[in-house]
Amino acid sequence: MLLNKPRLQNLLRAKGWLGLLATTPESVTYLSGYWAMPQWIRRGPQVYAFQGADSGTGSFVVTGTGLSDQAADQTLWVDDVHRYGEFFVTPQLEPANSGDAMPAWRTRWVDILTAAQHDSPAKAVAAALQKAGVTGGAIGIEEDGIGAAQLAAIRAACPGVRFEDAGDFSKRVRAIKTPAEISRLRSACRIAERSIYAALQGAHAGESEYDLLRRFNTQTVADGAYPVLYCIGIGERSAMPNVDPSRKQRLSVGQTVRFDVGGRFEHYRADIARIAAFGDVPAASRRAHAAVQAGIEHALEIIRPGLAGRELFDAVVGIVRRAGLPHYQRNHVGHGIGLDGYEVPALTPTSIDVLEPGMVMCIETPYYELGHAGFQVEDMVMVTETGVQSLMSLPHRLLDCPATGSPPVFDESPLQVLVAGSPAP
Amino acid sequence: MLLNKPRLQNLLRAKGWLGLLATTPESVTYLSGYWAMPQWIRRGPQVYAFQGADSGTGSFVVTGTGLSDQAADQTLWVDDVHRYGEFFVTPQLEPANSGDAMPAWRTRWVDILTAAQHDSPAKAVAAALQKAGVTGGAIGIEEDGIGAAQLAAIRAACPGVRFEDAGDFSKRVRAIKTPAEISRLRSACRIAERSIYAALQGAHAGESEYDLLRRFNTQTVADGAYPVLYCIGIGERSAMPNVDPSRKQRLSVGQTVRFDVGGRFEHYRADIARIAAFGDVPAASRRAHAAVQAGIEHALEIIRPGLAGRELFDAVVGIVRRAGLPHYQRNHVGHGIGLDGYEVPALTPTSIDVLEPGMVMCIETPYYELGHAGFQVEDMVMVTETGVQSLMSLPHRLLDCPATGSPPVFDESPLQVLVAGSPAP
Repeated sequence: MLLNKPRLQNLLRAKGWLGLLATTPESVTYLSGYWAMPQWIRRGPQVYAFQGADSGTGSFVVTGTGLSDQAADQTLWVDDVHRYGEFFVTPQLEPANSGDAMPAWRTRWVDILTAAQHDSPAKAVAAALQKAGVTGGAIGIEEDGIGAAQLAAIRAACPGVRFEDAGDFSKRVRAIKTPAEISRLRSACRIAERSIYAALQGAHAGESEYDLLRRFNTQTVADGAYPVLYCIGIGERSAMPNVDPSRKQRLSVGQTVRFDVGGRFEHYRADIARIAAFGDVPAASRRAHAAVQAGIEHALEIIRPGLAGRELFDAVVGIVRRAGLPHYQRNHVGHGIGLDGYEVPALTPTSIDVLEPGMVMCIETPYYELGHAGFQVEDMVMVTETGVQSLMSLPHRLLDCPATGSPPVFDESPLQVLVAGSPAP
Repeated sequence: MLLNKPRLQNLLRAKGWLGLLATTPESVTYLSGYWAMPQWIRRGPQVYAFQGADSGTGSFVVTGTGLSDQAADQTLWVDDVHRYGEFFVTPQLEPANSGDAMPAWRTRWVDILTAAQHDSPAKAVAAALQKAGVTGGAIGIEEDGIGAAQLAAIRAACPGVRFEDAGDFSKRVRAIKTPAEISRLRSACRIAERSIYAALQGAHAGESEYDLLRRFNTQTVADGAYPVLYCIGIGERSAMPNVDPSRKQRLSVGQTVRFDVGGRFEHYRADIARIAAFGDVPAASRRAHAAVQAGIEHALEIIRPGLAGRELFDAVVGIVRRAGLPHYQRNHVGHGIGLDGYEVPALTPTSIDVLEPGMVMCIETPYYELGHAGFQVEDMVMVTETGVQSLMSLPHRLLDCPATGSPPVFDESPLQVLVAGSPAP
């Protein structure tokens, strides 16, 4: 399962909370395995998940009846699914053929649909907490995933329970990834690399940023992921950190292309960056790239458990300055990644986060220079017991693309395979 | 522009508000034209947009400095961009060639980057409201797009201003679409239709739901849109309303396939549904489909300005019952669509929304029968001065796919072209 349950329960006990009620889509999926699509794609659906601080406390999901099919079809690690609101599903009308076994999802769904229907999300939470054995004391609730009105309704429906904000707490729980999470992050990362390579294959003068984007997105969906982050900038437009691929900006020989990209694979995010060089690029571009590359390579040498986020920041920024960009300044040199794009740890000058084995992070040294270009190397890496393991296979250096339209020049053989454990595309 | 400014200002004046402060990504884009990618793809970035109730009041965007590049690169319809927080961009180091004109986005970005930097989103809002001429009175704020702590900080930073919840208000403003919005919705709809057709082309026995999904997604990104809603279910799995395409469920002759799908094109959503029949399907399936089809076709006959949402609901459900499903029950027969998937009007038994010209809605009559299948016809339509205009070109009937793997049998010629006004794929 995705959830690191011993970690959650240790942190809950340290906090004095009887459990955690997740309200953000990311934490609901993490605590329960339940991915309620409507909660992810539009504003409004109320879906919650709960885990207790000890084995004597129950766990549950609260969801709308019309969303409960996915709770039956997916693999959940909670005791109960509680539903609220009316939704109409017609029971089986035709008798089944005697040889037909009922699929497991249907059995589970019928169980959910025939259980009590609550009037509102808040009333369902109240009933679910009671069944889980929580009738008093304090629990954490993610206030950033719920509107003020819904939060007030939950408080009113559970007068014996004290709800305390767990926004930062749940991010801390999710900071150490389980093997199941690392496997998904590894796949998301590999798919992003393959998509950069696909975008560069056959790149030719006169193409637009949008043309590169289309090859990128096509590879991402072919590999079973979904496009999320797709900043692809040519030449001086690549100095915009969030550059939105344009149909007008055209590639010409001597330009660099910045990719800051990553999709979502089985709900987990990728976020990586590389720079491609189209034909011969100016010496100033190669110098700037070498400096940001040196920063990342130094990070990979020093990352280990116990290192503070702010120490890593200082060391990496120092190297970039010494390696060719003395004026280099940054707010951060990376961040955790998982179900959300920015997770714990923060790698900032003031971060109090300390690296621990199992953290998966993006390490990055972006440099944006007006009138020139943006340069960035960003790797996804995992902190191990003794140091760091990269999830990447693309080289750090400028990805040289011949101006003839031939494929980029580097060993692409690792990219030919999806990571072991990925479903075949 | 996307914004219907006269409508916004009329509704603001009726409410007695001096302006609307948008906090949800959808309304920020609508009020200002500003699509701040990080606000759409992860939790945390604070981006707001404001429009006043009259021409004497200024309009603005508030955004993080690190997100301000997109405000410079995009076409905005606000007076000012106010930024908060530090972000490092290196000024031009090399002198420009004398012949090089500075691109417009760079001029605008430098203007933003050299304007005052505020310490926090709340302080930026306070300064921006003052510059816009709002120093007292009441304004609306979307409470559902902002955390409790940020909301409290804004209130504290603007002691003279009364902030009232505008969650429902902003949805009402967005209910009547402008021509620019209708054009995007039309394209999103056509792309979803083309993607259904692509998924069905070459469908053959033994394929999984996931195989169909991949052809669907590939067409969506090839047409310049992004997958969002992609429920594709085969046989009895199609009775799950939110069916998540499975790698295990295989297509066999005699089954139906339900598509409830739609991507995002230039930030606007599609949501349509059709049923395909693979070879000869049972008479019960054809009967169920004919009933839900009759409901939609009746809706298209009666939709006109002045019709209440609940009247439409009653009429459509009544027809489905009389046309072959006497036990049919539903919570709604459709909803508005735009930047979000569910907008005003609601087509429910208790809806007080009344249809007006310029509303774009999904009309749908889903029917889910356990042990059999799900049946659904869902069209995107626009209310006109005199009635209704469909945005669709797929026929309503069962899309018959020969079991030989040949293309589905209907006139697909309208699908061969993207809608006029769409950028070429």
